[in-house]
Amino acid sequence: MSDLAQTNVSKPLLGTLLHEGVYRIVMQRPEKMNALSRDMMSALSAELSHAAEDPEVRVILLGAEGKVFCAGHDLKELTLARGDTDGGKATYQAIMRQCSDLMQQIVRLPKPVIAVVTGVATAAGCQLVASCDLAMATDTATFCTPGVNIGLFCSTPMVALSRNASPKQAMEMLLTGESIDASTAKDFGLINRIIPRDYLDQVVQKYAEAIASKSAHTLKVGKEAFYRQLEMPLDQAYDFAADVMVENMMAKDAEEGISAFLQKRKPEWSDS
Amino acid sequence: MSDLAQTNVSKPLLGTLLHEGVYRIVMQRPEKMNALSRDMMSALSAELSHAAEDPEVRVILLGAEGKVFCAGHDLKELTLARGDTDGGKATYQAIMRQCSDLMQQIVRLPKPVIAVVTGVATAAGCQLVASCDLAMATDTATFCTPGVNIGLFCSTPMVALSRNASPKQAMEMLLTGESIDASTAKDFGLINRIIPRDYLDQVVQKYAEAIASKSAHTLKVGKEAFYRQLEMPLDQAYDFAADVMVENMMAKDAEEGISAFLQKRKPEWSDS
Amino acid sequence: MSDLAQTNVSKPLLGTLLHEGVYRIVMQRPEKMNALSRDMMSALSAELSHAAEDPEVRVILLGAEGKVFCAGHDLKELTLARGDTDGGKATYQAIMRQCSDLMQQIVRLPKPVIAVVTGVATAAGCQLVASCDLAMATDTATFCTPGVNIGLFCSTPMVALSRNASPKQAMEMLLTGESIDASTAKDFGLINRIIPRDYLDQVVQKYAEAIASKSAHTLKVGKEAFYRQLEMPLDQAYDFAADVMVENMMAKDAEEGISAFLQKRKPEWSDS
Repeated sequence: MSDLAQTNVSKPLLGTLLHEGVYRIVMQRPEKMNALSRDMMSALSAELSHAAEDPEVRVILLGAEGKVFCAGHDLKELTLARGDTDGGKATYQAIMRQCSDLMQQIVRLPKPVIAVVTGVATAAGCQLVASCDLAMATDTATFCTPGVNIGLFCSTPMVALSRNASPKQAMEMLLTGESIDASTAKDFGLINRIIPRDYLDQVVQKYAEAIASKSAHTLKVGKEAFYRQLEMPLDQAYDFAADVMVENMMAKDAEEGISAFLQKRKPEWSDS
Repeated sequence: MSDLAQTNVSKPLLGTLLHEGVYRIVMQRPEKMNALSRDMMSALSAELSHAAEDPEVRVILLGAEGKVFCAGHDLKELTLARGDTDGGKATYQAIMRQCSDLMQQIVRLPKPVIAVVTGVATAAGCQLVASCDLAMATDTATFCTPGVNIGLFCSTPMVALSRNASPKQAMEMLLTGESIDASTAKDFGLINRIIPRDYLDQVVQKYAEAIASKSAHTLKVGKEAFYRQLEMPLDQAYDFAADVMVENMMAKDAEEGISAFLQKRKPEWSDS
Repeated sequence: MSDLAQTNVSKPLLGTLLHEGVYRIVMQRPEKMNALSRDMMSALSAELSHAAEDPEVRVILLGAEGKVFCAGHDLKELTLARGDTDGGKATYQAIMRQCSDLMQQIVRLPKPVIAVVTGVATAAGCQLVASCDLAMATDTATFCTPGVNIGLFCSTPMVALSRNASPKQAMEMLLTGESIDASTAKDFGLINRIIPRDYLDQVVQKYAEAIASKSAHTLKVGKEAFYRQLEMPLDQAYDFAADVMVENMMAKDAEEGISAFLQKRKPEWSDS
């Protein structure tokens, strides 16, 4: 359990567990549909920072308690700010900034982050899934961006969504506000795998441990390079990636990894 | 029916019908395979401008009469211009400009545009489908970019096509000129749904009415933001979308929408 | 057979065969898993340059002998360079440059290049498939980017991979290093078709001949324009593509192609 998340009296906003290099972060406000209140966003951000720093943590799982993975922004919190002298504008700016920062923190985190979705992922909750490097779900998971139904288009969620799904797929979710099931989400590229609920914990843990067994240095270098080259034209992307590859070759872990492979033995990473 | 489209004597190029905020525009030159002649493009552009302005119109459906949804450019019109002193160059420039403007008019239109395809969508006709925000089709619909067969690569259609399908999928259509069926088009992200012919009109009308029931302001803000952020790097996209979201929060429709949601009642949009 | 590839005594690195405008290039170092050694990359690059120049060649097939299509870089060659005074850095730079140039040579080649994959395509071998315009495979083909397993993230392969598959799909391959089968590769957009092994040669030859029967000028113009417009914002892409289309219209092959189409006869291309 994290000290940083102890803003709530009874139970921390987030539960955490480290096992074999895999760090589970679990949102545990099912009664509030794990909404991204400012407190919840702060807690997530703090946990992610902690996970980024802790050398024991090699892969992060992001899950949630209850039937709703995450319902997006806390509408009551948003509505409360209407009473401010500026009609809430400063508060909304702060909240949207905090939320965008949180999503980009996941993308920039030097370790893989895997969403584990067993329930409804809505609006900024759907964005949270889209922002992770990978996503696992049960067939009970659903995904939607229903802001349009309440007059508030899911504009920030669509940044992440439209970088996963194709334009017409994303547009349908955004314009209709309707849910898609896990199978459709997989077709759209929003999630990677659908896993039966009964086996979810074991399968995801095993899967994450397999990634955790790789060189942390290599994962860090690779993840960072992935998102950077994605935004470059082809020739620049190649110049950049070739440099990354050379630096990677010069690092100890590649020397060890290639030697181990050629000698048919298990590699011993410098950082593990 | 539109006054603007009365260039043809017997029957206007376009039929139109407004019902419950849903505006159907139907190309009705089946004997000319609904080719995008200059007249047809002018008529479409004028109808779209009208639909953009008319507050009664909230969602636009774009369909066609006959077995061919749209056969692309009018080859006879193109061939006629060969006799010009410049070999047709000025005419081709004007036609390509007009066509590119029409496609971008759809993308920039402040209301959702949904293609409804029951037949063959070829070349610039396929581009028309790709340029719409959403696309519905029957299982009799087919799609192709066969310009390569007549020595004229579908270069402008590919701009829209390659922003729907993945590179190899688009390239296969462009290099072979072969048709894909509706099911493949759905896999490629070129269309959203396949609907049986017998139920098409009702299903599409219902679907469009559901979108028409949302706040027009919200749809406008959201659609515009969608295409703009799609072309930005991630950090800029988030800065931009966060601003859009704050502005959206400050608008009346979001206040009403969120209040109605929290009070479990139907929202009443300012513009409806 | 290519003269340029005669660096190996017994059998050239590459076998080649020209039939009906379709030029097969076959990597034939199955005992070395067709690794992209510097010699192999030089041989491929020389063959591709030759194919680009030769007017008889209209479409290129890129295949391989044996159970491994291509295993990526030659790890023994990489390891040997460790003994250099700079720890291999200059060599790695040269190899990565050579490899990136080869991949971009395929993209920039004025003729369609089709990968034909019957076995394992790994790391830079997977990148080779991703870099081709189209890819055909048997159901025995598999694809992976396993660099992460040896401490060397597949950073240059991911440039091509992430321009075919969606981010989460590419990320899963890169972070886990696990193989995907042909069916998954088709879902990801990495290959176009899966063809039974027994019919592969005939089907691919027929398919390639169909493309070879198009105007070479048109294929050249179209392929080049495709990759260029892909990196532009929508309005620039349309301005560019409209110009390409007009130039294409003014070329002899379009005049002939359109006339032939309207006269219901077979076109005779100027270059064939």
